[in-house]
Amino acid sequence: MIDDIGARAKAAARQLATTSSAKKSAALRAMAAAVDLDRARILAANDRDMAAGADEGISDALMDRLLLNDGRIDGIVSGLNKVADLPDPVGVHTGGWKLYNGVRVQRTRVPLGVVAVIYEARPNVTADAGGLCVKAGNAAILRGSSYAYSSNAAIGEVMRQALEREGLNPDAVQIFPDTTRDGARALMQAKGYVDLLVPRGGPGLIAAIEAEATVPFVIDGAGNCHVYVDAEADLEKAAAITFNSKVQRPGVCNAAETLVVHAAVADKFLPGIAIQLMEAGVELRGDEKARNLVGDMKQAVEEDWGTEYHDLIMSVKVVDSLDEAIEHVRTYGTGHTEAIVTEDYSAAQQFVEEIDSAVTMVNASTRFTDGEEFGFGAEIGISTQKLHVRGPMGLEALTTERYILYGDGQIR
Amino acid sequence: MIDDIGARAKAAARQLATTSSAKKSAALRAMAAAVDLDRARILAANDRDMAAGADEGISDALMDRLLLNDGRIDGIVSGLNKVADLPDPVGVHTGGWKLYNGVRVQRTRVPLGVVAVIYEARPNVTADAGGLCVKAGNAAILRGSSYAYSSNAAIGEVMRQALEREGLNPDAVQIFPDTTRDGARALMQAKGYVDLLVPRGGPGLIAAIEAEATVPFVIDGAGNCHVYVDAEADLEKAAAITFNSKVQRPGVCNAAETLVVHAAVADKFLPGIAIQLMEAGVELRGDEKARNLVGDMKQAVEEDWGTEYHDLIMSVKVVDSLDEAIEHVRTYGTGHTEAIVTEDYSAAQQFVEEIDSAVTMVNASTRFTDGEEFGFGAEIGISTQKLHVRGPMGLEALTTERYILYGDGQIR
Repeated sequence: MIDDIGARAKAAARQLATTSSAKKSAALRAMAAAVDLDRARILAANDRDMAAGADEGISDALMDRLLLNDGRIDGIVSGLNKVADLPDPVGVHTGGWKLYNGVRVQRTRVPLGVVAVIYEARPNVTADAGGLCVKAGNAAILRGSSYAYSSNAAIGEVMRQALEREGLNPDAVQIFPDTTRDGARALMQAKGYVDLLVPRGGPGLIAAIEAEATVPFVIDGAGNCHVYVDAEADLEKAAAITFNSKVQRPGVCNAAETLVVHAAVADKFLPGIAIQLMEAGVELRGDEKARNLVGDMKQAVEEDWGTEYHDLIMSVKVVDSLDEAIEHVRTYGTGHTEAIVTEDYSAAQQFVEEIDSAVTMVNASTRFTDGEEFGFGAEIGISTQKLHVRGPMGLEALTTERYILYGDGQIR
Repeated sequence: MIDDIGARAKAAARQLATTSSAKKSAALRAMAAAVDLDRARILAANDRDMAAGADEGISDALMDRLLLNDGRIDGIVSGLNKVADLPDPVGVHTGGWKLYNGVRVQRTRVPLGVVAVIYEARPNVTADAGGLCVKAGNAAILRGSSYAYSSNAAIGEVMRQALEREGLNPDAVQIFPDTTRDGARALMQAKGYVDLLVPRGGPGLIAAIEAEATVPFVIDGAGNCHVYVDAEADLEKAAAITFNSKVQRPGVCNAAETLVVHAAVADKFLPGIAIQLMEAGVELRGDEKARNLVGDMKQAVEEDWGTEYHDLIMSVKVVDSLDEAIEHVRTYGTGHTEAIVTEDYSAAQQFVEEIDSAVTMVNASTRFTDGEEFGFGAEIGISTQKLHVRGPMGLEALTTERYILYGDGQIR
């Protein structure tokens, strides 16, 4: 099965690679219109998934992720139209020069080819990911959760019909039919077919890919993000940034998990922010020095410093110096995002120089590590690896580069 | 052992990441001077490797690769000095913009951290690879062949002493002591320590890495390169490019393996180039049409089209159209380098559009796919993968990027 799907994807990718920007955008808009028009069919398929989910007694949270309604369909439609409007990353010349012998070198951005996406229960990812892949000139193989299979199949079929009406190969979007673990593994190991595997899921999926994938992948890994409040911090900014980084959306990877506070301002800063956080439902787990300043703080254990809570929990550490703060972050951080709050120029510079995370921030919330916030228009994920792409991934992450050399008979 | 070496490398990498360009260049020059001055010690160590190799009865070719002499030491010295002179890839701002809310985004090039290199018998790779890693701000773990261990250890020791004299952590260059297969595997799986693994070796090493590595790697894969002589080719240029691509250095990955000729010029072109190639010792293996034009050409079998000979052998195919040529290249190519020879503008454009190799050439020898030729000053290898870096790899391939955001209290 993987051979058939892989070969179809390669054929579609070959066509898409030389399809004009205008035609790709038109296809995206046609997909959006088709999802809009065929929403009854998609919602009916979603009803079947929801009914099956209810029969199986899946959790309310999972049921909510699974659910499609008119509002969510509207979101899919506007998402596809927005991607249609984004600038095409393909065909951009990213460099060029003349060699000593007159040969002209041109470096140009091209699609990767076939992109596989493995994701969990949200059916909107089918349209989002499929749209982004097509926009960047890639064929998509989409493998969602078994719980969402009817919804995904319906969305996929609607997108494929739109592609066909636009004169494009419908295999540019394929829904992978095997939603078992074996199916996921087949996709992870589809060497020769899959040029990039993008996982959109939790630590279990990431671990499986790291252990089993033989195709190239980008990892959207854990974010154990830190906010460091320096001795010279503006404490109002520090409170706003700490609160926002922790509370605005605690379940995402760019939320802060640890607050590190310089001892010089701990007594002025910690009691106030602790009340604010606790009133917002945040459980605080601190070291001895922090607990001496805030009464009802739990004792942090070693494990806390390395934990991405994904929840309204925050560990709190008091340090005696910027160096100690940097050391703590380097020891326990996951290389995602760290922020310093300070008015001290040299402290800010030292922090951004010595912390080697995908993103370091001075006086800004960790929540800004995000493709939309960065202005990429859309986000495929946030890479915590160092190869290929790092930090928020926009359309460019779905492309590669190649060289074209123009000569006139030159030889070595 | 890997834990100790890995931790030392990480510590050295941390220092190097914030070491100035001037200091890194000075260290490279100090290493060059030390190799120059301590050449007797390095040559004595090499004598031991050569004597052991002779005792084991290794091949003349391997003995030659293993050998160091004054000329080769001179090459190492000038290589290190040349890398010292290259522009520092680290610290370059590769992008920057202001967000809607006033936060300034800065994208900057930084070292990868720890780079491991697994290579074969040539001891000069120890200095080359170590020098390139240090120049790009990375700590190097170098694991060469057991045959060259004494030579590598001596070169490494000399480099480490030079680093120390320059006030840098000598662990920026470490020779990995375990030259067994288990040692290689330990390095391939040193997750958390190795940020990039660079293999410099043959298909066996590449296959082992693809199967066993859990650390990120770049593959310098096979080059089944094609020269296509179009119906509208200038046949003089075609002959020069074909001959140069095949004969100038047949054992390397950018040498051509298959000659594809349009039927419209086959009778004018093939007999002449066949004589030239055969006089240079090239064995030709052709399809029926080619053999009808050149008498003493062997019959090509299916396997020939997919083979990287690395030798004075060339397969020859006659096609009836540009489309058929593109189809042949896409079916059997390895995505390394392909050249078209033509004076037809549209044919050239179609070829470079539809062939998705790391490098496509118009009217130039495939031998130009090379870091030195590209003007990178040095080459770590030629990537045939699509992620991270593609085509000739210079110093930039040993770096990654990260973001720094400067705010003034912004929150979401």
